[in-house]
Amino acid sequence: MNVTVLGTGGWGLTLGQVLNDNGHKVSFWTFSQAEVNLLSTEHQYKDKLPGVIFPDSFTYTTDMNKALEGAELVLIVVPSQVMGNVCKTFAKWNPQGKIPTVVCATKGILEGTDQRMSEVILENVPWLDSDHVVTLSGPTHAEEVSRRVYTAIIAACPNEESAKQVQKIFSNDYIRIYTSTDQIGTELCGSVKNVIAIASGILYGIGAGDNTRAALITRGQAEICRLGRALGANPSTFAGLAGMGDLIVTCLSQHSRNRYVGECIGKGETLSQVMSHMKMIAEGVPTCKSAKALADSVHVELPIVNAVYEVLFNDKKPAEVIQELMNRDLKPEAEY
Amino acid sequence: MNVTVLGTGGWGLTLGQVLNDNGHKVSFWTFSQAEVNLLSTEHQYKDKLPGVIFPDSFTYTTDMNKALEGAELVLIVVPSQVMGNVCKTFAKWNPQGKIPTVVCATKGILEGTDQRMSEVILENVPWLDSDHVVTLSGPTHAEEVSRRVYTAIIAACPNEESAKQVQKIFSNDYIRIYTSTDQIGTELCGSVKNVIAIASGILYGIGAGDNTRAALITRGQAEICRLGRALGANPSTFAGLAGMGDLIVTCLSQHSRNRYVGECIGKGETLSQVMSHMKMIAEGVPTCKSAKALADSVHVELPIVNAVYEVLFNDKKPAEVIQELMNRDLKPEAEY
Repeated sequence: MNVTVLGTGGWGLTLGQVLNDNGHKVSFWTFSQAEVNLLSTEHQYKDKLPGVIFPDSFTYTTDMNKALEGAELVLIVVPSQVMGNVCKTFAKWNPQGKIPTVVCATKGILEGTDQRMSEVILENVPWLDSDHVVTLSGPTHAEEVSRRVYTAIIAACPNEESAKQVQKIFSNDYIRIYTSTDQIGTELCGSVKNVIAIASGILYGIGAGDNTRAALITRGQAEICRLGRALGANPSTFAGLAGMGDLIVTCLSQHSRNRYVGECIGKGETLSQVMSHMKMIAEGVPTCKSAKALADSVHVELPIVNAVYEVLFNDKKPAEVIQELMNRDLKPEAEY
Repeated sequence: MNVTVLGTGGWGLTLGQVLNDNGHKVSFWTFSQAEVNLLSTEHQYKDKLPGVIFPDSFTYTTDMNKALEGAELVLIVVPSQVMGNVCKTFAKWNPQGKIPTVVCATKGILEGTDQRMSEVILENVPWLDSDHVVTLSGPTHAEEVSRRVYTAIIAACPNEESAKQVQKIFSNDYIRIYTSTDQIGTELCGSVKNVIAIASGILYGIGAGDNTRAALITRGQAEICRLGRALGANPSTFAGLAGMGDLIVTCLSQHSRNRYVGECIGKGETLSQVMSHMKMIAEGVPTCKSAKALADSVHVELPIVNAVYEVLFNDKKPAEVIQELMNRDLKPEAEY
């Protein structure tokens, strides 16, 4: 099968390698001529995935129409905040009557409109419909999948057949795909977890213990679930790979950029200080605003997201908000 | 309030310290005169909780009747496999018409009968009823709670008022208690998680990555939930502190004995080799047998528990069972 990947970030390249391992032909598009030159000559991206050599058969171009020639599956993996613009260009491509399955592996919510990525894609690509947009999400550090470490993730689409098609195309002996029809839940999990990961990082920064972090992750999970339910998601998604699985990795792993942001803040830096020395994007920062806005819109209380918001944007001290969280009224666990 | 703690392990001493912090009077019973001598003179237990000094007001005795004099609350924290015998002695005490609340903080399932701890207590103490037995469980390393690190746990009892009473008695500004009426689920979570922790340890031992471990924990959680549902537990318990929260800590923390057992096996040792150099009890080993027996009794499939069973007791190679798990039929996530 001919696959086109929009985006040459670590995760896009890694998923391209998975598809190449499975016998598919993979072309990449990126807006950056420098990346095209680098990848075409060196077949690796040392800054992003040191030590990983990509197949010679990969092709790279800045011409999206050329990259999409003959595409039967399109994988989009660009930063969430540029998804709209990338899709405006993608919309100009003419699929000549045969609508390809579009797989979105970008996690995030668009700041300002608070839309999920599948919503952004569908709004910007008029010839696409929701049956053809599949979300890929789960606990997946590119650093590991690119080294073919065992991984399990979710392919979610309201149309189960499309999810199954993606399951078959991506699965092999080191990556196992489960299907789901709950795209809303899958996308919310993948975004809001980054806010909880910042909170987890703050706990690392102030030197808290495993118990505290486990309580944070569990209660954070309950918050995401509460928000998701109000927005029409299936609660069971939040206990799955895209929910709990991804949340665990993001909160605990050394690779997580959002955890890193929190850790610096826990050690006393301000958000602008952290941002000034970070190369990569920490999606949890804009998502914190979006999650708060979404929660307000459906009148759901998110104590941990609010606490992170106060620390990030209103300079509240971490120790102060933790003490407030501990001293809330005593409750039954199930009372959300 | 007068509290008697049966057991002087790290967790019993720690919970005694919590109660002392909250203004209660705490007496300990242990079967070991050597422990009574050590704790009475040194006020610390260097082997179990190095650096933690217990209050002078703590009293210690091997005479259970004496320890129980005037007890208004009894906390039982003894190894699961001796719970029956300790309760037989406890049953001889005469509460003089006023049945105290009995809090059980032991996690585990009794090998052979496959009973949960509250079942063992009720079977052996005829004057007790289920309204008075409260299970305390959650992500709680004694090493951390004893240093007053922020912690959140569950008090579960079919009688909500008893759970609330325990919530009030134990809560303070570093430990937050949530109540639940799902005692079955709470107890199952606290036991079966140890089997998943062995599996997590095996993955550490063979050098697997964060993605793999997150997938294991998530799918392990799904298994525990499936078993719990078949045995009458409330599925939401498994997403809570006693479920997911405790599972995360046990699978990832350096303090976990079960994870340690798995790690040694992942590095190539056999179970008997590991057992020969371990001082403390790894509950996950007998629980693996019990969980398998319970699952068989209600015809529930537990692929990860079965895989651990094969590795522990039938000398199957970890790499082999992992490959089998990865190559099972592709499925929707929610299809248990």
